[in-house]
Amino acid sequence: MADTDELVNQVMGKLLNKANAGTTVDTKPTQSGLTEFVGTAPVGDTIGMVIANVDSGLSENLHLQKQFRSLGILSARTGGGPQIMSMDEAVKATNTQVVSIQMPRDTKGGAGHGSLIIVGGDDVSDVRRAIEVALAAVPTHFGDVYNSPAGHLELQYTARASEAAHFAFNAPIGKAYGLIAGAPAGIGVVMGDTALKAANVDVLSFASPAYGTSFSNEGILHISGDSGAVRQAVVAAREVGLDLLGTLAGKPKNDFPSYI
Amino acid sequence: MADTDELVNQVMGKLLNKANAGTTVDTKPTQSGLTEFVGTAPVGDTIGMVIANVDSGLSENLHLQKQFRSLGILSARTGGGPQIMSMDEAVKATNTQVVSIQMPRDTKGGAGHGSLIIVGGDDVSDVRRAIEVALAAVPTHFGDVYNSPAGHLELQYTARASEAAHFAFNAPIGKAYGLIAGAPAGIGVVMGDTALKAANVDVLSFASPAYGTSFSNEGILHISGDSGAVRQAVVAAREVGLDLLGTLAGKPKNDFPSYI
Amino acid sequence: MADTDELVNQVMGKLLNKANAGTTVDTKPTQSGLTEFVGTAPVGDTIGMVIANVDSGLSENLHLQKQFRSLGILSARTGGGPQIMSMDEAVKATNTQVVSIQMPRDTKGGAGHGSLIIVGGDDVSDVRRAIEVALAAVPTHFGDVYNSPAGHLELQYTARASEAAHFAFNAPIGKAYGLIAGAPAGIGVVMGDTALKAANVDVLSFASPAYGTSFSNEGILHISGDSGAVRQAVVAAREVGLDLLGTLAGKPKNDFPSYI
Repeated sequence: MADTDELVNQVMGKLLNKANAGTTVDTKPTQSGLTEFVGTAPVGDTIGMVIANVDSGLSENLHLQKQFRSLGILSARTGGGPQIMSMDEAVKATNTQVVSIQMPRDTKGGAGHGSLIIVGGDDVSDVRRAIEVALAAVPTHFGDVYNSPAGHLELQYTARASEAAHFAFNAPIGKAYGLIAGAPAGIGVVMGDTALKAANVDVLSFASPAYGTSFSNEGILHISGDSGAVRQAVVAAREVGLDLLGTLAGKPKNDFPSYI
Repeated sequence: MADTDELVNQVMGKLLNKANAGTTVDTKPTQSGLTEFVGTAPVGDTIGMVIANVDSGLSENLHLQKQFRSLGILSARTGGGPQIMSMDEAVKATNTQVVSIQMPRDTKGGAGHGSLIIVGGDDVSDVRRAIEVALAAVPTHFGDVYNSPAGHLELQYTARASEAAHFAFNAPIGKAYGLIAGAPAGIGVVMGDTALKAANVDVLSFASPAYGTSFSNEGILHISGDSGAVRQAVVAAREVGLDLLGTLAGKPKNDFPSYI
Repeated sequence: MADTDELVNQVMGKLLNKANAGTTVDTKPTQSGLTEFVGTAPVGDTIGMVIANVDSGLSENLHLQKQFRSLGILSARTGGGPQIMSMDEAVKATNTQVVSIQMPRDTKGGAGHGSLIIVGGDDVSDVRRAIEVALAAVPTHFGDVYNSPAGHLELQYTARASEAAHFAFNAPIGKAYGLIAGAPAGIGVVMGDTALKAANVDVLSFASPAYGTSFSNEGILHISGDSGAVRQAVVAAREVGLDLLGTLAGKPKNDFPSYI
């Protein structure tokens, strides 16, 4: 029996080594020497790129709010809010402007969005810097994304919204802004109700599968107002969301430290 | 050789135990003490909730057909038809009204929809009862959902459609209604043709990726008419659908007993 | 040690055999004796079917460009471009006409589209032949689809576009046509820029999550022009796309030989 146990452990050890080795080999990221490549973020299959001098035939077909010589691109399979709030910081810090935010129905089989965000600038060094700042901020803004096999929650908060939050969510620039999302969508409805009862804030909109999302399975409340009140509303909604989503498939977990 | 076989069985037994234990720990649903929580159904990540006295700032932004004091919410990652037909029974049985049905493009990487269904009532006990009735009916209405790795089929039938089927699918209230869906969508086209040749029924509509779905990969025929004819059409389509979907990746299976 | 190693190998061999056997049993495609069934392609859950004499009640609700007695149906969970380009060859070779192309947001949790393509003809033997030709061409047109855990690339090229490419992508009939797609979408933007700088071609359109896709996470450039130039643009974009997508999760791989 003891011998068998030991043998079983040896077999399992080898199996696990083989499995891990296989995974590592198959998915090892390669390096890029392209001038267009800026970097990646360690979450959401997020990639940052720049085009120094965009082809006009392309630029005219990109549905950009304004034409620029240089474009910076932040693109991800998983995550809309985190990348948008990361770009919100980046445009504050650089001489660039948001010219497109699009949200595919993605997340690799999950309930939410991916993102495609394009910023423009007259100088490629500006847009490159914007993409670098945004990539660095992405993990922070995944800090209040909580996942379980049944769905996810997302909370975002800024004391002072900038251009990206305005472009994507109609957040008033310079005021506090909060995003409160739950999936499946009904959880977002109850989180939204909780938030609005917890503090005196302004409702910007409520997005749901048929309204203001790309058919994602999310209920998303966008709020604005006094910074203390917005934060309080977001925190109250988070508690209720964690409780409700936990009833379906165990405690939701965040992959990065909470920032709110 | 016999020894090796036994060893293999022992190893596999231990592996399975470890795997199952891990799964159980990771996904164990938690309990909720929130007054908003009603319960869950054992399929589709379906959760039921109520809001006794909805915040008006939220309610005005929910795109509801009519405003109510109390809201009942049925929300799921997987399944539109089953939850809608379950709610169809629930509104018949309670003093509530359907005020929103939205269908995200979801099913956790599958080809179909999830659902967000909201009912309203003047009394929270009514909407709570509606959600309880709907949750209890969900497994039955998954009885003719057949899955394979390549896609799925869904059949629904009621002898007397009510408000939810009317709201979502334009089913005439009080008449027999049938839903015939196949994924990938082309299978639904052939199922629909079969259904209409099998019995004399009225076509309400045919939904497909670009028309009447949220870009789901389904072909969905909605029919009405004499109850015997509707049932006959649904049953004929089911046979053809099982045959066609089976050619891609093996026999499709239902997780609950067929009810049609 | 040597003995143990051998034993471990034996155990693992048996485990793998059991695993493979199980997979085969669970997903073994069944055969169909239905007259509607034409066949399947070995990729993308692609199924081909015909309806010899379509029910008028169905046909009128299918949103077809033109009514026909016989319909041919090509339907898939994964792949829009490959199936459309395969049908492009099929309609050239048969007396049939494209009457519907719809693109669900699918790919089983991937970033792209599935497809539903319907052709019409006056004779069922014509539409059956069209579906057979298209099914046979599908693997070829997956030859320049490259997948990684983080996303995919797709390249298509024809020296002479026909009706399906025209219907779906507005490709001028009889001229060379190229499709350049990357997912996540931002990679498609940079690939598009590269393509347009590599050769003198005409931009037909650029599709992205919010424009011209079904919310897929793809950036897709459609080009036309001189056949050598179109091919050169496609090949240049492929190099850049492979490099960029590789930075996220390892080298993207094609499942069939490249044809461009």
